[in-house]
Amino acid sequence: MNRSELSSAFQKVRQTTRDLCRPLCTEDYVIQSMPDVSPPKWHLGHTTWFFERMILEEFADNYRACHPRYYFVFNSYYQSFGERVARDIRGTLSRPTVEEVFAYRTEVDEKLVGLIGGLEQGRFAEFADLVELGLHHEQQHQELLVTDVKHILASNPLRPTYRTCDGDGIRRAPAPSPPTFHEFEAGMFEMGAPDGGFAWDNERPRHKTWLSDYGLMDRPVTCGEYLDFMKDGGYREPLLWLSDGWDAVSENGWRSPLYWDRRDGDWEIVTLRGSRPLDLAEPVAHVSFYEADAYARWEDRRLPTEAEWERAARQHGRSMQGNFLEDGRFHPAPGGCGSGEGQPGVRQLFGDVWEWTGSAYLPYPGYRQDRGPLGEYNGKFMSNQMVLRGGSCATPKSHIRPSYRNFFQCDKRWQFTGIRLAKDLH
Amino acid sequence: MNRSELSSAFQKVRQTTRDLCRPLCTEDYVIQSMPDVSPPKWHLGHTTWFFERMILEEFADNYRACHPRYYFVFNSYYQSFGERVARDIRGTLSRPTVEEVFAYRTEVDEKLVGLIGGLEQGRFAEFADLVELGLHHEQQHQELLVTDVKHILASNPLRPTYRTCDGDGIRRAPAPSPPTFHEFEAGMFEMGAPDGGFAWDNERPRHKTWLSDYGLMDRPVTCGEYLDFMKDGGYREPLLWLSDGWDAVSENGWRSPLYWDRRDGDWEIVTLRGSRPLDLAEPVAHVSFYEADAYARWEDRRLPTEAEWERAARQHGRSMQGNFLEDGRFHPAPGGCGSGEGQPGVRQLFGDVWEWTGSAYLPYPGYRQDRGPLGEYNGKFMSNQMVLRGGSCATPKSHIRPSYRNFFQCDKRWQFTGIRLAKDLH
Amino acid sequence: MNRSELSSAFQKVRQTTRDLCRPLCTEDYVIQSMPDVSPPKWHLGHTTWFFERMILEEFADNYRACHPRYYFVFNSYYQSFGERVARDIRGTLSRPTVEEVFAYRTEVDEKLVGLIGGLEQGRFAEFADLVELGLHHEQQHQELLVTDVKHILASNPLRPTYRTCDGDGIRRAPAPSPPTFHEFEAGMFEMGAPDGGFAWDNERPRHKTWLSDYGLMDRPVTCGEYLDFMKDGGYREPLLWLSDGWDAVSENGWRSPLYWDRRDGDWEIVTLRGSRPLDLAEPVAHVSFYEADAYARWEDRRLPTEAEWERAARQHGRSMQGNFLEDGRFHPAPGGCGSGEGQPGVRQLFGDVWEWTGSAYLPYPGYRQDRGPLGEYNGKFMSNQMVLRGGSCATPKSHIRPSYRNFFQCDKRWQFTGIRLAKDLH
Amino acid sequence: MNRSELSSAFQKVRQTTRDLCRPLCTEDYVIQSMPDVSPPKWHLGHTTWFFERMILEEFADNYRACHPRYYFVFNSYYQSFGERVARDIRGTLSRPTVEEVFAYRTEVDEKLVGLIGGLEQGRFAEFADLVELGLHHEQQHQELLVTDVKHILASNPLRPTYRTCDGDGIRRAPAPSPPTFHEFEAGMFEMGAPDGGFAWDNERPRHKTWLSDYGLMDRPVTCGEYLDFMKDGGYREPLLWLSDGWDAVSENGWRSPLYWDRRDGDWEIVTLRGSRPLDLAEPVAHVSFYEADAYARWEDRRLPTEAEWERAARQHGRSMQGNFLEDGRFHPAPGGCGSGEGQPGVRQLFGDVWEWTGSAYLPYPGYRQDRGPLGEYNGKFMSNQMVLRGGSCATPKSHIRPSYRNFFQCDKRWQFTGIRLAKDLH
Repeated sequence: MNRSELSSAFQKVRQTTRDLCRPLCTEDYVIQSMPDVSPPKWHLGHTTWFFERMILEEFADNYRACHPRYYFVFNSYYQSFGERVARDIRGTLSRPTVEEVFAYRTEVDEKLVGLIGGLEQGRFAEFADLVELGLHHEQQHQELLVTDVKHILASNPLRPTYRTCDGDGIRRAPAPSPPTFHEFEAGMFEMGAPDGGFAWDNERPRHKTWLSDYGLMDRPVTCGEYLDFMKDGGYREPLLWLSDGWDAVSENGWRSPLYWDRRDGDWEIVTLRGSRPLDLAEPVAHVSFYEADAYARWEDRRLPTEAEWERAARQHGRSMQGNFLEDGRFHPAPGGCGSGEGQPGVRQLFGDVWEWTGSAYLPYPGYRQDRGPLGEYNGKFMSNQMVLRGGSCATPKSHIRPSYRNFFQCDKRWQFTGIRLAKDLH
Repeated sequence: MNRSELSSAFQKVRQTTRDLCRPLCTEDYVIQSMPDVSPPKWHLGHTTWFFERMILEEFADNYRACHPRYYFVFNSYYQSFGERVARDIRGTLSRPTVEEVFAYRTEVDEKLVGLIGGLEQGRFAEFADLVELGLHHEQQHQELLVTDVKHILASNPLRPTYRTCDGDGIRRAPAPSPPTFHEFEAGMFEMGAPDGGFAWDNERPRHKTWLSDYGLMDRPVTCGEYLDFMKDGGYREPLLWLSDGWDAVSENGWRSPLYWDRRDGDWEIVTLRGSRPLDLAEPVAHVSFYEADAYARWEDRRLPTEAEWERAARQHGRSMQGNFLEDGRFHPAPGGCGSGEGQPGVRQLFGDVWEWTGSAYLPYPGYRQDRGPLGEYNGKFMSNQMVLRGGSCATPKSHIRPSYRNFFQCDKRWQFTGIRLAKDLH
Repeated sequence: MNRSELSSAFQKVRQTTRDLCRPLCTEDYVIQSMPDVSPPKWHLGHTTWFFERMILEEFADNYRACHPRYYFVFNSYYQSFGERVARDIRGTLSRPTVEEVFAYRTEVDEKLVGLIGGLEQGRFAEFADLVELGLHHEQQHQELLVTDVKHILASNPLRPTYRTCDGDGIRRAPAPSPPTFHEFEAGMFEMGAPDGGFAWDNERPRHKTWLSDYGLMDRPVTCGEYLDFMKDGGYREPLLWLSDGWDAVSENGWRSPLYWDRRDGDWEIVTLRGSRPLDLAEPVAHVSFYEADAYARWEDRRLPTEAEWERAARQHGRSMQGNFLEDGRFHPAPGGCGSGEGQPGVRQLFGDVWEWTGSAYLPYPGYRQDRGPLGEYNGKFMSNQMVLRGGSCATPKSHIRPSYRNFFQCDKRWQFTGIRLAKDLH
Repeated sequence: MNRSELSSAFQKVRQTTRDLCRPLCTEDYVIQSMPDVSPPKWHLGHTTWFFERMILEEFADNYRACHPRYYFVFNSYYQSFGERVARDIRGTLSRPTVEEVFAYRTEVDEKLVGLIGGLEQGRFAEFADLVELGLHHEQQHQELLVTDVKHILASNPLRPTYRTCDGDGIRRAPAPSPPTFHEFEAGMFEMGAPDGGFAWDNERPRHKTWLSDYGLMDRPVTCGEYLDFMKDGGYREPLLWLSDGWDAVSENGWRSPLYWDRRDGDWEIVTLRGSRPLDLAEPVAHVSFYEADAYARWEDRRLPTEAEWERAARQHGRSMQGNFLEDGRFHPAPGGCGSGEGQPGVRQLFGDVWEWTGSAYLPYPGYRQDRGPLGEYNGKFMSNQMVLRGGSCATPKSHIRPSYRNFFQCDKRWQFTGIRLAKDLH
């Protein structure tokens, strides 16, 4: 990107974060409704800190921190940058205030835009790469902002909404056609991000992998299908579950996906637009890996590996059409809002819901983590997590790629996480 | 109280709560910095709920709740009033907003003032008693508001202040004279609140108790004296501690009172006006019962019983002069700011710091708890707590009495809790 | 005691401990079925350590420990004697073996008996006092041995018995007559152990206390009466409970006393002789303070203070007749096996079940804890515990006194703890 | 296997278990020194239960359980077989006694041997397969027995030994030559157990996988090499660790492998033959996956994948020579006791220490878990665990295979787990 493209991209992404906050009242910014959730104002501050600490500190002359104490408050997990507020007590901080955090954003934005315009040419390429990375980082936090706000509001007994319900939110879609499995022949597949262009270090290097024959479901599992699993006693039958999964069911008392509510015998679902009856046609979301795996076993299927998923995405991705953050629905849509519906092949791979894979989040062969603090971005989380693919209705469209690897622990449910099944063909 | 006195008292107390909130920014109202702390807006809502639920519901014709869901949100621990938000997640609620809570206060205040003026005469006496009780309840929460705000601000790495430091906050007082023990002869003592006038149920009935000879320290223990205990290894010698106390020291890593900070070899203290060097002359505060008890053992003394304390308070209380909430210091003062200094006898019994006694919080002989929901106010907490006496710099002056019994678990430190020693005379 | 009396007392008490172990198999000695329980072999070792560490080390010439590492293994909680195995992992130690522990007993016994015979006269009195104290200590552990073995066996799904059931264990007694309350007039009472004779430091000094009029139930509450409380929803009504008590009910899922078992609609009770149908006439046992307190509130009564209990015991104790360890029942008996039944006044004060009082375990006025390590015996536990009086069916008869103060935390249930009610007379 | 071979194999394996118990005293059989450890008598009972419940119940006519309650006591984790004693309280059971458990073994052995001789021919093949599987199951518990006994004895402050130290236990070996990396060319590899012959379901199906060029260390990492990592601050530098790993270091206070003891500045190591100075030449053992991974990062290497390991094992396994359970050392040996030392290629792949791989324990492509209860054996543990390869000094030699997949959570250290490094070749 040249200077003006970079400046424009920077301002656009940063503005999107502000826009996402518009429906919030001051109090909403402060809340941490569970340890995984961060207060919205922390996201605002942390993404700003990222630009200040990673870029301004390196590239601005004689840089002096806007607020040195913010370095402590807004560091997430970077050991390279010293001590920080423990993650699970982010919700105990009233200061800096929301206004102060927005002022901090403005200050850093101005300095960064100044640097985009004025940095000596010799350092610009390296600088621009880092800014681009910072924008992808910010986009990740845009998604977290949406899912965290959802949890904050849904945990409140007054059940406030993020956006009020307009027409398309309550449209009941027709039941989708029964699932089919698109078949892929065995063969060697080159997976991972190609050289050139932005990708996280964990998407590289591109490497060969051998895949046996497999079938992949043409669309995500729907709420109606998942409800059949529940009605069949899915949450009561230990033999359907991984051992750790059954422990999670027992300890947490899971009986349905997160945000499902039993009201007078009917299921309601809590969305960012408020509660409404469950739509059987929409993709099921907010399930853990354990639930996805148990559902697959109940169907006598399995989850796809990330290689199987990526191969399908390259063949059938259709330019990554889908229901993304920009669509403003903040909820999965039946049929992905028409992206590819009725067409042959595998649909709705992108957007709507992140799809749990059966692959552990591990380094690719030949993986080299980035040098310096950015090395902490991905590599150190490569244990006890599973890969998810495809993005969700809270993911910015420009953020996703066929090679994109998201990852969460097996019991997490507050992201828009769903299910697509695979099967062996022999 | 007649109608106009009651109306005036009501408005004055309710206004004081608002005044105490003036230094807060919106974000401060939402925070629960540890399970014992409640968010300031919860205090505002809960005290209002108390008037609505206990009084308006009973005395207003065809009363309809302002916001029925608030009954769930703002109930503290009244089983009589059904389900409520668990105490330790009060800090996860962004709504109702601060503005909504203040509006709720205004609405209930108007209705209650209306009732003070308009309630039929036949029910007024009973009503007025309940309003008075509600005001005492509100005053308790004024003290909690101050101590909770102190904890919220002190937990913040940016170290915000509640009020900025003016002159008297940093005045260094002369070292107090060495402690003396005023002697009391053995004899029968009538303790507890006399009939008539407001008192909590736990202060009654007045009853006889026999006291042996004893001596009572003429003033509270100072920071300087407590520092001697620390320097002598007080926190490292298990034989000075109750068994439970030593466990608390070990588990919590206590090495000083709460809010003491070691900076470059010197002790600083965090106050509501910010951090400043420790004043050796001021009463030590923010110690647990265990620390008070260990300090006493180190001095080869003991804590007084509540009867011993109350007897001294009746003889030496001097109209309960002292350093109270109204004084606006929000911190204990050397010599209680001159109340009784230099006079013979026992001084500073009221205000400055709550004084731990060696008495467990138990019912008096013949105790009858109030009927109905108010019966839950005091009686059900009569286990595993110790009695404190005398009020603190965060207690409203009109709230305290010689018979007043405060109570906390042995390990609590976030109140302004201090030490006065007693000794046996044989 | 002279030398031969002391020697005989020593050998008798030590032998009793061995006798109590006779029904155990080797494996039983090793188990810690919950943190409060100690493995029987630990009791055997610890009581021996007590004689070695407190007495042989002081009085034997050039004493060398039998096994220096045992000092670490068998120290209970004496900070004066340094580090020790954490209490809750006593059940992780297979060595020393049971045989080794018995050999250790034999070795220490021989040395101690030798000292009884041979110690120089000038030190004998002090020595004899310590030996006597050691025997009382051993008797406390005899009671713990019985209650711990009960818990160990009852926790086992194979439900082994300690002794098989003979005739008197299953005798069904007639329902006791309805309770009456014996009345005591207000007055000054001298409580505590008189000077001379053995008593723990916590029973002294004898001191005056004023008592109002009160009534004391003539016998302990029976299982039948307690069952009425249960049937009336006692465990489901929070308003009957102390706040901490209701938390305990909720967290532990209490629905009955410990060792009660619902089988096909009937209540069975697990005893040291095995399971059998509940006997409605026998005193209820294995209730916590919280349950005792809730039961009293349900009856609109209260628990007695320890002063009230002690005064009754001095007037009505009838030489402390009762159902004790020596009787070999190991279970409370209806009517205390005839001790005082049918006579006027207060019965069954001693033996059968420890009676919870409403008094916190605190120092008496003028209390001085013993010097040296023995000072850790009682004084450091004077917080967060309640006093129990009278001994139980697992207490050696020679161990108990009217002034004897036992103490446990409010939620403990594995001792033979029961209920006697009191009431105010105005 | 024919009937006589099967009978002989059965008796041999069952006898080995008894032999391993010979050094134990009765008390040792009962202990659970941490939740991962099972009491030795539980292993004895559980392996017996396995034969009874899986085989006798199916193949013996009108079979009646020896002791029906044992089905509850000795079920490990089979949901198919109903309720069981919770894993972490196995150490609270004194009964059945050790003698009773051995009697149970004898009873089941006799019945099973009878069946080997007398079962109708038509069912024999299926039966023999199950018996063989039961023997492999028993061998797994032989290894656990050794490692659990090691933990039980090492946790005891008296530091008992399993076997006394004879000559070869203390032999100091010469320092091994510096590690070299044997290089493997990229290519397709068929991994997993071939059809025919015993293998667990998780080793199948055999399947293709593509491997890039890689280098594999010729021998395991030694204690001396690991000590260099420690001296270089390995346990203090968070950037060397996975995020979960650093949490484990911090929470558990890890500063060395398990069983290493700092004594007066020197390192000692606790073995089953007692404590002795650390032998720098022997393979490091008792490290977690996190430690193995951190060590590899410190060396700028990585752990091998299980495919890389298995390929080397097929080329260089040399008939699986190594230091196994049968050798009776119960400890890793420098140079694997000469197996392959000095020869070119990769040595010591089998025996000594299980080698952590960088592969998550997941199903192979096309994996089908066994039907019925045996389906619970492996498949349900396929989350949050890592694969280990090669067996250890506590593994029976006849139990191991090149395709054998062991698996543990990343933080486990009580098995003989060690490190072999790999590296990329580009």
